Amino acid sequence: MKPTIEEARHSLAHLLAAAVLELYPDTKLGIGPVIENGFYYDFDFSKPITADDLGAIEARMRAILPTWSEFRKLEVAPAEAKKRFISNPYKVELINELEAKKEGITLYQSGTFVDLCRGGHVKNASADIDPKSFSLSRVAGAYWRGDEKNKMLTRIYGLAFSTPKELEEYKTRLAEAEKRDHKVLGPQLDLFTFSELVGSGLPLWTPRGTLVRNLLDAYVWELRAKHGYERVEIPHITKKDLYVTSGHWDKYKDDLFHVKTREGHEFAMKPMNCPHHTQIYARRQWSYRELPQRYANTTMCYRDEQSGELSGLSRVRAFTQDDAHVFCRMDQVKEEFLKIWDIIHEFYPKFGFNLNVRLSRHDPAHPEKYLGDAKRWEMAESMLAAIAKEKGVMAIDGLGEAAFYGPKLDFLAKDSLGREWQVATIQLDMNMPERFGLTCINEDGKKEGIVMIHAAIMGSIERFLSILIEHTSGLFPVWLAPVQVTVVPINDKHADYASKVMAALAAASIRAELSPSTETLGKRVRAAELNKIPLIVVIGDKEASDNAVAVRRHGSKTSETKPLQAFIADVKKAVEERAL
Amino acid sequence: MKPTIEEARHSLAHLLAAAVLELYPDTKLGIGPVIENGFYYDFDFSKPITADDLGAIEARMRAILPTWSEFRKLEVAPAEAKKRFISNPYKVELINELEAKKEGITLYQSGTFVDLCRGGHVKNASADIDPKSFSLSRVAGAYWRGDEKNKMLTRIYGLAFSTPKELEEYKTRLAEAEKRDHKVLGPQLDLFTFSELVGSGLPLWTPRGTLVRNLLDAYVWELRAKHGYERVEIPHITKKDLYVTSGHWDKYKDDLFHVKTREGHEFAMKPMNCPHHTQIYARRQWSYRELPQRYANTTMCYRDEQSGELSGLSRVRAFTQDDAHVFCRMDQVKEEFLKIWDIIHEFYPKFGFNLNVRLSRHDPAHPEKYLGDAKRWEMAESMLAAIAKEKGVMAIDGLGEAAFYGPKLDFLAKDSLGREWQVATIQLDMNMPERFGLTCINEDGKKEGIVMIHAAIMGSIERFLSILIEHTSGLFPVWLAPVQVTVVPINDKHADYASKVMAALAAASIRAELSPSTETLGKRVRAAELNKIPLIVVIGDKEASDNAVAVRRHGSKTSETKPLQAFIADVKKAVEERAL
Repeated sequence: MKPTIEEARHSLAHLLAAAVLELYPDTKLGIGPVIENGFYYDFDFSKPITADDLGAIEARMRAILPTWSEFRKLEVAPAEAKKRFISNPYKVELINELEAKKEGITLYQSGTFVDLCRGGHVKNASADIDPKSFSLSRVAGAYWRGDEKNKMLTRIYGLAFSTPKELEEYKTRLAEAEKRDHKVLGPQLDLFTFSELVGSGLPLWTPRGTLVRNLLDAYVWELRAKHGYERVEIPHITKKDLYVTSGHWDKYKDDLFHVKTREGHEFAMKPMNCPHHTQIYARRQWSYRELPQRYANTTMCYRDEQSGELSGLSRVRAFTQDDAHVFCRMDQVKEEFLKIWDIIHEFYPKFGFNLNVRLSRHDPAHPEKYLGDAKRWEMAESMLAAIAKEKGVMAIDGLGEAAFYGPKLDFLAKDSLGREWQVATIQLDMNMPERFGLTCINEDGKKEGIVMIHAAIMGSIERFLSILIEHTSGLFPVWLAPVQVTVVPINDKHADYASKVMAALAAASIRAELSPSTETLGKRVRAAELNKIPLIVVIGDKEASDNAVAVRRHGSKTSETKPLQAFIADVKKAVEERAL
Repeated sequence: MKPTIEEARHSLAHLLAAAVLELYPDTKLGIGPVIENGFYYDFDFSKPITADDLGAIEARMRAILPTWSEFRKLEVAPAEAKKRFISNPYKVELINELEAKKEGITLYQSGTFVDLCRGGHVKNASADIDPKSFSLSRVAGAYWRGDEKNKMLTRIYGLAFSTPKELEEYKTRLAEAEKRDHKVLGPQLDLFTFSELVGSGLPLWTPRGTLVRNLLDAYVWELRAKHGYERVEIPHITKKDLYVTSGHWDKYKDDLFHVKTREGHEFAMKPMNCPHHTQIYARRQWSYRELPQRYANTTMCYRDEQSGELSGLSRVRAFTQDDAHVFCRMDQVKEEFLKIWDIIHEFYPKFGFNLNVRLSRHDPAHPEKYLGDAKRWEMAESMLAAIAKEKGVMAIDGLGEAAFYGPKLDFLAKDSLGREWQVATIQLDMNMPERFGLTCINEDGKKEGIVMIHAAIMGSIERFLSILIEHTSGLFPVWLAPVQVTVVPINDKHADYASKVMAALAAASIRAELSPSTETLGKRVRAAELNKIPLIVVIGDKEASDNAVAVRRHGSKTSETKPLQAFIADVKKAVEERAL
């Protein structure tokens, strides 16, 4: 039987440790588990090493590999194990724990190298592992057992795949992802910035970035308007009481930014909008005839993330939700879900994303994580399953992925690098309306409890943009590009006509910038490409005399000459259709 | 010489006390000062009184008045004064303080009534005060000397003017203002609401209110767009460091909502936007050719107001600024000021407001209140004075009204009740850019400090709306009304044509609602008037057969019949022109 990739990765962690010990004999070993795409091992080096040393270690691994024909299992008593690792406090600590838990202690030997290990290796490393299917990737600091009170060890990461081809493909993808890193591209394209004085995790949006945010948001609003959504607005702060009532306080109070007023009251910055929106619904008594009430709101939420967890726009302390809540009766849920489903399936293809759907259910083994009784949960989940079925979609089963107040349909977008991201969500909530006492007057003139639907199309605009920037490498579709056209006159002679073109574009509300002829044509075209401007218009004698433009799409080597008015019409059409 | 109105009001406070003592002899007197529009007196009654008792007290005042021909001054020693007021701990407390400060003690007697008093009365109350020129207005609780640790006394308020006519006019204005109170009208017209769970001072914006906010804001953006303003976006939170650098921390730290993160860092919710915007400017080095940079942002700010100071939308804990900052060189300031001036003078007349301008200067007697040296202040103030002069406006002199970072042009709007409100502001700031090290590269290739302009058109949207609601009594111009047209079919027969009218209005993006014929025509028209719908369209046989509508403007008794398409064209024109 072919060994699994996990077995190969685990074996390679041993091999890494063996190579390190040969090269740096006084090194103490920590642990070396398998991870996604490879493995790592933590070492306590007597002298620090750097990434420059990885080549030699990798070479030594390849030198040892042919000598490893087996992993020999040795069952030993705790005392013997401790004796063997007497000079290594990390292994002794692990052995003591195994002893305390009365678990058996096993060692595995390959060649001359012995490690404390539970097992799970390839049979014959020299035969089962292609020496070109792995490589060491990087060095990082890591506290022993992840606890910052412990000593900082050196972690060496390795990549490993079943074949050298897979390794190379992964490396190519990684390099491509690095080139597309939104943390680099975003500031480069002048979409957002961070300030030391404002703080990490708190992006500041430049004019270009704000324009992109607003265009995205306006599109969502356009799709929502057809379905009767109304805008509401709320402050970003509230008395704690709101979250005590909603149930969020118990679950999430450690993740909130807490505010103490001068009068000593406890306030919080909002980490979500649903509780505020319930209070807009609650302003008066509604008749069933007036439902659904559909409130939507593009607004920032805040979470007290730890500094170490922050990352570009993916993980921030302030993020903008395109949030909507539908207050309705149970018999209106299906129709409302379908409407939101349609919005989501109109929105995402406009960026070339394919969507998968996950039915995020509660975990019946952990009822303490959820509000409300099991029966209601099952009813709600079967309703959501029926909706996915009606849409002809095989939903992924998301056991335990529900919100604490109800089940969800989550939408997963696959990006151009094949990575999958959770984006939009539609959630059915039968609990919060009850906690807030939200009702309508029904056909019998009696108060009747209602339900609510939580719906976000982009989810967090920040996170959506981080995905979109990496998906497109910053080259947005024409309708979304902050600068749609760069006008490049070949030389000073063409400045007048270039101004005329600029004026015509401005009059047509096309976002254009002029690249004046202070640099060579080649340099200016390259600059426009680097700035991810989707359309480059070059202007020379012929264009000026023909009232035409030579249009070159980003990334194309050739250009097409067309009348200025035809070009304007093309751009307007692409914007209207939100063409890819 | 005619006595001043303050002397009359002061004399009336004595008269009130005299009348109370005659009616309730065991009452202890507190103090009785002059206030805007009248006077009050604080009493310690042995039994509580209510507003119902005011009539009798007022009658007794009028009975005593003819007997008061003088205010006789008595200079007395502290011991004698204390003896005279032996049974009144409040007066004794005041006398002790005067004695400690070695101030002379004076009593004033009119008729049989004697009070501890510094003086400032009319000569002859019976001749100088028209008995119809004053009235008692209300009763309230008030702590002795405003300190909640002291006993709660009963405060009786009186109104007093020079003539009965002025009193009546004031009362009419007051009644009108009460009818227009935005705290009543706002929720009645379903523009905003408050929730006990969210907290006071934190308005929640309903769909109608949000629509009005957004229409106002969109108009400001439309005016700004002509002048090259760009949108930016910022989080509502920051590290404290930002305000330490800006200088706000020293001045205003007690007014901020403070946030402590889980990692123990000090953050604050933003009480203004300028420091955040400087950090967007600071993201890169600018050339002088790229200035001005004009950033604008509609965004909420927060102040930790005390509960007792909150009032409707006028004084809130979360308010939305339509804030803009221009980063430029000193020689660009005048042009940028004039542009903003033009925006303000285009905006306010659209609501029927007349504007006055105030030049808000620093107070040279209190340099500690301001950043930067006197010379810069004088230069900046003379520049602002020159701008007002160029616009042909006599600016009001606002000594000591400057911001701590620079002088301002403040705009004051007079409302339909003759009240004046500070609204828009343009501020020159030569200090904050220096504190943040903001520069441009000048013509010589050297770094040069820049200045910034702070500009708000509405200021706070909440406060502007509170003024606008009271100014219009909730009857907004057609372009701004959340519901522009109510369609009233006379009876069921006209339902089909009414639907056709509704569809035609919707197709023209006119916000209309149908008033179905479940009530009488009169009731439905009255309801539309109460809801401050600017246009009521009544539909009967004739209108249905002629494809016409009978249009009635709010408040008008007559209607005008016109073809449906002509009506639609009229409404669209009114919206486009933002007609009053």
